[in-house]
Amino acid sequence: MIDVGIIGGSGYTGRELIKLLLQHPEATIRIVTSRRLSGIPVTDIHRHLYGLVDLRFEDPSPSEIASACDIVFTAVPHGAAMEIVPELLAGGTRVVDLSADYRLTQQAFEATYKRMHTDPRDAVFGLPELHPEVAKADLVANPGCYPTGAILSAAPLASEGLIKYAIFDSKSGISGAGAEPSETSHYPNLAENVRAYNITAHRHLPEIIQELRRLDRSLGNIYFTPHVVPAIRGIVTTAHLILHDESDYDAILNLYKDFYANKPFVRVRDDIPNLADVRGSNFCDIGLACGGNRVVVISVIDNLIKGASGQAVQNMNLMFDLPETCGLLMPPLSP
Amino acid sequence: MIDVGIIGGSGYTGRELIKLLLQHPEATIRIVTSRRLSGIPVTDIHRHLYGLVDLRFEDPSPSEIASACDIVFTAVPHGAAMEIVPELLAGGTRVVDLSADYRLTQQAFEATYKRMHTDPRDAVFGLPELHPEVAKADLVANPGCYPTGAILSAAPLASEGLIKYAIFDSKSGISGAGAEPSETSHYPNLAENVRAYNITAHRHLPEIIQELRRLDRSLGNIYFTPHVVPAIRGIVTTAHLILHDESDYDAILNLYKDFYANKPFVRVRDDIPNLADVRGSNFCDIGLACGGNRVVVISVIDNLIKGASGQAVQNMNLMFDLPETCGLLMPPLSP
Amino acid sequence: MIDVGIIGGSGYTGRELIKLLLQHPEATIRIVTSRRLSGIPVTDIHRHLYGLVDLRFEDPSPSEIASACDIVFTAVPHGAAMEIVPELLAGGTRVVDLSADYRLTQQAFEATYKRMHTDPRDAVFGLPELHPEVAKADLVANPGCYPTGAILSAAPLASEGLIKYAIFDSKSGISGAGAEPSETSHYPNLAENVRAYNITAHRHLPEIIQELRRLDRSLGNIYFTPHVVPAIRGIVTTAHLILHDESDYDAILNLYKDFYANKPFVRVRDDIPNLADVRGSNFCDIGLACGGNRVVVISVIDNLIKGASGQAVQNMNLMFDLPETCGLLMPPLSP
Amino acid sequence: MIDVGIIGGSGYTGRELIKLLLQHPEATIRIVTSRRLSGIPVTDIHRHLYGLVDLRFEDPSPSEIASACDIVFTAVPHGAAMEIVPELLAGGTRVVDLSADYRLTQQAFEATYKRMHTDPRDAVFGLPELHPEVAKADLVANPGCYPTGAILSAAPLASEGLIKYAIFDSKSGISGAGAEPSETSHYPNLAENVRAYNITAHRHLPEIIQELRRLDRSLGNIYFTPHVVPAIRGIVTTAHLILHDESDYDAILNLYKDFYANKPFVRVRDDIPNLADVRGSNFCDIGLACGGNRVVVISVIDNLIKGASGQAVQNMNLMFDLPETCGLLMPPLSP
Repeated sequence: MIDVGIIGGSGYTGRELIKLLLQHPEATIRIVTSRRLSGIPVTDIHRHLYGLVDLRFEDPSPSEIASACDIVFTAVPHGAAMEIVPELLAGGTRVVDLSADYRLTQQAFEATYKRMHTDPRDAVFGLPELHPEVAKADLVANPGCYPTGAILSAAPLASEGLIKYAIFDSKSGISGAGAEPSETSHYPNLAENVRAYNITAHRHLPEIIQELRRLDRSLGNIYFTPHVVPAIRGIVTTAHLILHDESDYDAILNLYKDFYANKPFVRVRDDIPNLADVRGSNFCDIGLACGGNRVVVISVIDNLIKGASGQAVQNMNLMFDLPETCGLLMPPLSP
Repeated sequence: MIDVGIIGGSGYTGRELIKLLLQHPEATIRIVTSRRLSGIPVTDIHRHLYGLVDLRFEDPSPSEIASACDIVFTAVPHGAAMEIVPELLAGGTRVVDLSADYRLTQQAFEATYKRMHTDPRDAVFGLPELHPEVAKADLVANPGCYPTGAILSAAPLASEGLIKYAIFDSKSGISGAGAEPSETSHYPNLAENVRAYNITAHRHLPEIIQELRRLDRSLGNIYFTPHVVPAIRGIVTTAHLILHDESDYDAILNLYKDFYANKPFVRVRDDIPNLADVRGSNFCDIGLACGGNRVVVISVIDNLIKGASGQAVQNMNLMFDLPETCGLLMPPLSP
Repeated sequence: MIDVGIIGGSGYTGRELIKLLLQHPEATIRIVTSRRLSGIPVTDIHRHLYGLVDLRFEDPSPSEIASACDIVFTAVPHGAAMEIVPELLAGGTRVVDLSADYRLTQQAFEATYKRMHTDPRDAVFGLPELHPEVAKADLVANPGCYPTGAILSAAPLASEGLIKYAIFDSKSGISGAGAEPSETSHYPNLAENVRAYNITAHRHLPEIIQELRRLDRSLGNIYFTPHVVPAIRGIVTTAHLILHDESDYDAILNLYKDFYANKPFVRVRDDIPNLADVRGSNFCDIGLACGGNRVVVISVIDNLIKGASGQAVQNMNLMFDLPETCGLLMPPLSP
Repeated sequence: MIDVGIIGGSGYTGRELIKLLLQHPEATIRIVTSRRLSGIPVTDIHRHLYGLVDLRFEDPSPSEIASACDIVFTAVPHGAAMEIVPELLAGGTRVVDLSADYRLTQQAFEATYKRMHTDPRDAVFGLPELHPEVAKADLVANPGCYPTGAILSAAPLASEGLIKYAIFDSKSGISGAGAEPSETSHYPNLAENVRAYNITAHRHLPEIIQELRRLDRSLGNIYFTPHVVPAIRGIVTTAHLILHDESDYDAILNLYKDFYANKPFVRVRDDIPNLADVRGSNFCDIGLACGGNRVVVISVIDNLIKGASGQAVQNMNLMFDLPETCGLLMPPLSP
């Protein structure tokens, strides 16, 4: 059994981690932390888990957590992870960080998040379909939700050097903005609506650029525009990929199928997927259409699972030499 | 032209008043107040009205407002209206109060809202279908949204003394809870959900009891349970009315049609109405079904219009001897 | 391993059965039938299960199914089950029927569904919390979705003879109406709306009456009014229960907790549950409020799981002497 | 008074035309046709208008309609308009056609809609912001909903020859697909979802190309991908415009403000608009963001009003020398 700690258990990614790990046959949750809620039963906040888990939120020190756990998930805001990860690693535990702190180079991080990085160190970018070296890592930087959908939608073409430039137009459910009520999440503001935001400069863009340029150093402009749509969960990424040459549907579809042939959580489809195909699951479904020198790739994920906590557990599986799908094959909720 | 003031112009009822009065051929908005937003253009907050109104929020004293306006709408929280209404009336203006402050007897108010009433005085309960004396009033207490739907659904039967007891089960869109984000209005908490709240003791119950007992002093128990549903606007009231005797559909339908024969905003239907029939309008649509000694009456309103600001303008029309429908016959938005 | 057949695998209840049984550690799906789709891969229709199941729809005779399966779920329209159940039982298999055909007495069935019953025979009403004799049954009549929520909300009080009469006001997601598009399920007609229907005479009422009168022969009038709300899944039942005597919150809550003490899928709560607490799970959560001689009980279920296919699997577990929760403890999807 | 006929009054565009013309001070609806519903009161279908209109659907011949009406709106499927428009024009009435039949050149029409055009003739493309010659036209081809949002979002930059190529990524409410229930409009399929469709080859693309190339013959590739989102009304168009040169926010915003300075229904904003800003109104709101050589323009419209029937009435106003805004300044419904 793997002993697991979750730092930051009150938000949506912590909540989903708890749920997933409860169902995991090889993991046991030892500690769930929350400074604010210390002492409170976990199910007072995560009501749906009533009767399924008997833990209370705690607030131990990182070193205490490190000594009790084989792996720790840090589900904290960016800037907070770098304060605790050094101590966790020093304590001998392994870490999957769900914040943004270790995803980028120091320079890119500081430019994007407008703050100094106090713990620059190497981490593996935790998109396991592209980074098998996750298995050996002590510190995995779990990707952002948008980058997961965007990178997976373009990686096969990028790895072949076929893309001239790329425009990612993403549509996300509001749970990506977290559990705290806000103007944007206020029901009358979101229902029957679509909102574009951070239109040319969302913080997730550098992750997308970093990973796609890693696959094709000469890939041209990469643009990203996110929207929130009236949905709780899910991200649809519409990747408008302009190729150097004319596109060929069959060839490209086969390229995608080959690229993801042994990746159990990416399902390349012969038609266009939608959010109901993946809601509540760790799948990323992909479909595409071609026209002239453009390929439009549609990828769909559950932002809280494949876009966050499910991917984190997938990384854990690889880090502990378990089957990649262990505890993660729950089918989507559809309808 | 009627010169109008709106005290409390930043919330949803103020917002809707501004919109309705802009379209009103006999009224001109002179003042829209907001302490917090004083100096800011109204359309910075009410973005949809951009180009349609050129006012700024102000913060004048009640007596200044009174001297500038023929009528003032107080769209403020309960407890706040009683602080300003005396001065407004003393200044010679007439008032439609959209708060709860003047709807109940002093005793009922204090028991319900758990606070002293500092300005007990007579006001007319502003449900114009039941209170034609609105026309002569200087102070009209505009009803709550739930009471509007509930009272109209039961009044014809109550006025004939036919109801033994009544259970009102209401389903409301979330705009009734206001423009401020909250746990309840957080999209992930409301979408795909229904929430019962204040199940046996909602503050609107005393209004319902007051008005129905006025029609039938011997009417038995009156129960009320509200729910929020995933909708922005609208209240569906399911009135389970248990009669003293067997119900007869045709007779009761005719009773309703006669009762509301000259009431232009109540449309009694031969079938069951739904929110799309009234969304965006000042109509209250009513339909019913019978079984044994039970009548189930379904009433539907737009909570922000017939349940608040539209009704307030309807009251204004009557107070100024205008046609009841003046400026208020905008058709519903359906679909 | 239990060999399972599903007759009628293309609709929502069949779809959910497939999903649940795929996750069940003691069951194997042998046959999924669909006359219309015979030969087609199951995942062409149930897209979300792509990669998780490799079956095709078939169309064998009931006797072939019976000989291949230890248990058969009939997820067919009412009237269709009685055409095949006799042959299935004659073939030696056990049956959980998800249609309405065996839930009522012959007389009640014929009065309600306006058709002759061609196979009147004894079946156990498959609400396992009230009918432990499910374990021994060869034919289990799985309850309707509304009756599941309504009966569970009132059973403890009914079993003590405390209820004078009962009004069930239910709010359902639209998936209860099935996978076929209709006027009611047309998005512009349902979004931002609530629709009452079959207001005094829904077909599920006789089931509710049958089960509650079984617990308390002298229980008075039982009323039921359903509504559809803008949600895919879930039923909230607001049970307005008028008692013979004054209600006492603590006593009644304890009564409920005791009544459901060993029922793993009923969670009695200290507050009011909502659909997010149970979505995607087999739980029925219950909370209540008291006022005068009225108790308002709120029960929430996922209509496709505890209200249909999950309950059917729960029945299977009992019929095959497995733990009641076997394969059914998937946590709810919240948010 | 202008005597108006509506051919095809049962669908969503006919429905919205009826509503708008009822409120129009200079127009009177003389005839509303529907072959299928002839003889039925209009309010049996358009329930929300109950009490506001007293017409019945009729089925007269085009020449009868032409002789009774000064203008006829043809709200019929593509292919049907060309069967009746010749007779209407021959009868001396003027026509605004809401179908696709007269928007494109004969060649483009036949290539796009895969059918012969039986009535090739000149018509004015009824986007009044770009086509003031609407005023003199006898036949106006009302634009498609997507083209309205897309063309208006790019026209100012196109008219200056600044765009290298353009990718329009549009998100539409489902009412654009009409009043008939379908798989796509089935609530469980659309709620909590986003669906891309006709990804590289939607029929509205040729309209967009025609109009933008008219403004800039050398504009490069123009791509268009539509999506349906869980909303009844509205289209958000995210126009990713790649310029020949570096973009400058202030200069481009001023260009837009100047371009639309005298266009009362286009509101250029200093920030990013959303659907609530225009729902229920004839406005097209536009905002933009710049980054590198990319401009992202967001335009929002109510697809049934500015995207269809409102624009048709706007055209009528111009054709009859009325103020462009006559009867069309109803404010948006927000929230």
